[in-house]
Amino acid sequence: MVRCIDWQDGAVLLVDQTLLPGEERWLRVPDVDTLVDCIARLAVRGAPALGAAGALGVALAVAQAPDPASVAAAAERIRTARPTAVNLARGVDRALARLAEGPAAVLAEAQAVVAEEAASSKAIGQRGADLLGELCPPGPLRVLTHCNTGWLAAVEWGTALGVVATLQQRGRLGRVYADETRPLLQGSRLTAYELARLGADYRVVVDGAAPSLIARGLVDAVVVGADRVAANGDVANKVGTYPLALAGARAGVPFVVAAPESTVDVATPTGADIPIEERDPAEVAPSGIPAYNPAFDVTPYDLVTAIVTDRRTIRPTRPVAPLMPVTPVRPDRTDQERP
Amino acid sequence: MVRCIDWQDGAVLLVDQTLLPGEERWLRVPDVDTLVDCIARLAVRGAPALGAAGALGVALAVAQAPDPASVAAAAERIRTARPTAVNLARGVDRALARLAEGPAAVLAEAQAVVAEEAASSKAIGQRGADLLGELCPPGPLRVLTHCNTGWLAAVEWGTALGVVATLQQRGRLGRVYADETRPLLQGSRLTAYELARLGADYRVVVDGAAPSLIARGLVDAVVVGADRVAANGDVANKVGTYPLALAGARAGVPFVVAAPESTVDVATPTGADIPIEERDPAEVAPSGIPAYNPAFDVTPYDLVTAIVTDRRTIRPTRPVAPLMPVTPVRPDRTDQERP
Repeated sequence: MVRCIDWQDGAVLLVDQTLLPGEERWLRVPDVDTLVDCIARLAVRGAPALGAAGALGVALAVAQAPDPASVAAAAERIRTARPTAVNLARGVDRALARLAEGPAAVLAEAQAVVAEEAASSKAIGQRGADLLGELCPPGPLRVLTHCNTGWLAAVEWGTALGVVATLQQRGRLGRVYADETRPLLQGSRLTAYELARLGADYRVVVDGAAPSLIARGLVDAVVVGADRVAANGDVANKVGTYPLALAGARAGVPFVVAAPESTVDVATPTGADIPIEERDPAEVAPSGIPAYNPAFDVTPYDLVTAIVTDRRTIRPTRPVAPLMPVTPVRPDRTDQERP
Repeated sequence: MVRCIDWQDGAVLLVDQTLLPGEERWLRVPDVDTLVDCIARLAVRGAPALGAAGALGVALAVAQAPDPASVAAAAERIRTARPTAVNLARGVDRALARLAEGPAAVLAEAQAVVAEEAASSKAIGQRGADLLGELCPPGPLRVLTHCNTGWLAAVEWGTALGVVATLQQRGRLGRVYADETRPLLQGSRLTAYELARLGADYRVVVDGAAPSLIARGLVDAVVVGADRVAANGDVANKVGTYPLALAGARAGVPFVVAAPESTVDVATPTGADIPIEERDPAEVAPSGIPAYNPAFDVTPYDLVTAIVTDRRTIRPTRPVAPLMPVTPVRPDRTDQERP
């Protein structure tokens, strides 16, 4: 299965997501400077794919200049290229931890991160589809989603969109409503592209319309990804997620977060502690018009019906204790995890 | 004060709102066909301005072909050019009711509608600013608004944006957050243009970001317009309004609707009875991508802190009886209405 980012012949290979769906251009990224630029301009994006990018970036850094000081400086630049998704820093840290073992060990760890993110998404898809089967009425499910959480975001398959793809495989998918996701339109550009390839019945809607669709009974479940899950179950995700949770709670429609364990950050106590990236106002409005452009929002745990990871299903509505870490799924264990 | 729509030299004169802010082009509309086209493509828009357009349209029809059958047919075409804002049909009906008295009476009634909508908006601005003074903490008020509700929507001054303009006059305005309002960007095009002319401190935000701004304590009050207020206090307004009310209710931030009495439709029992216009999917996404494009949403009365009209302040949180009609404000009574 094709991956949106991987290691190939001594460089990082990734599809430039800024050009999709018009053009599928694959970039060979030979150095850290180019990778940091790709991360900042969202050529590679999505929490799991950023985890892969972080780990592979350290492998690039080691290949360029293996002395610890140079690697540490490069790793810091990669880690801080975007602040909200914890996966990026976590991917960097995992590869960096193998530095003393030499370049081969760093690369092996980076490739393991890529493989694990890919494997996680398949497990999330299965677990999420199982959960929606329990939570929702029988028959074709009408799912609303936000931003892009498919193979472009998750290396392979997808997180929230992986759940959608699994429902489609099982013959349980009705219609998908995909938020266009302003300002960068990951929904109408990337998710629509993926849904069309899946052969799904879908409609793109403006972000402002989604809550009223939920209120009008057109949606059986909201399924979104996450950039970071705090220890109390608060969820940071692409801006525009929070209103979907508000509308779901009012309508009694399940609001399900699908994300790998690598997105659960037990070191972050609550959503208030998650740094929210503020991006260039020019993404929102033409120059000359002042704009404010937070890229993420935080959904409080009490609005979240469930968080589905590759390893567990968390129901944070009434958390009694902080989330604890669990061991991430390993690729070679994925199959035996499934019943 | 300049009006966005008026009668001039035997024709309707209106500013083409589809070209703003790039170009301020005034159109002379000599016949019903052209007016219906202007209404459908939103060259003239906003509930109060549509009321004016409806009434002036009947005057145009009478000037073109004064026989009752022709006028009735033309009136029906104008009335159904857009379904959600009750003002359009109401403007048509008021002018039509004078048909038996001859063309001069029809035109006089149409001009009265224009003058009343203009006068109403000044009264709404005063009443709304008074209310926010009561509801909000002292000091500069940070207001969030949606779509465009200024003089472009309300003939003169504005409804929700009239409240903002009145706060600015009184020195009580802090920052305004203006939703860009997809798909047609009335916020970043029209409201930003009006706020810049007011000299207000403002930022445009994507619609999906607004609820999280409310949750983060950046907003003292949400103020929006309305296209129709049902008898139970449910409010239809531009799609993307409902999530603001949900976020306001959760955060304890007042959600205030500013609209003329001509928008209150006691003949519509609840929001479920308000027809929601579905517009061309091409407004949302390029052709080839299926989209669903409802232009309005309904905010249930229990999420509405207050509805401010030119005549009264309705607090529908616990309505005990359907709203009853009150006499609309007359232009010559505006001044004595104010304390």
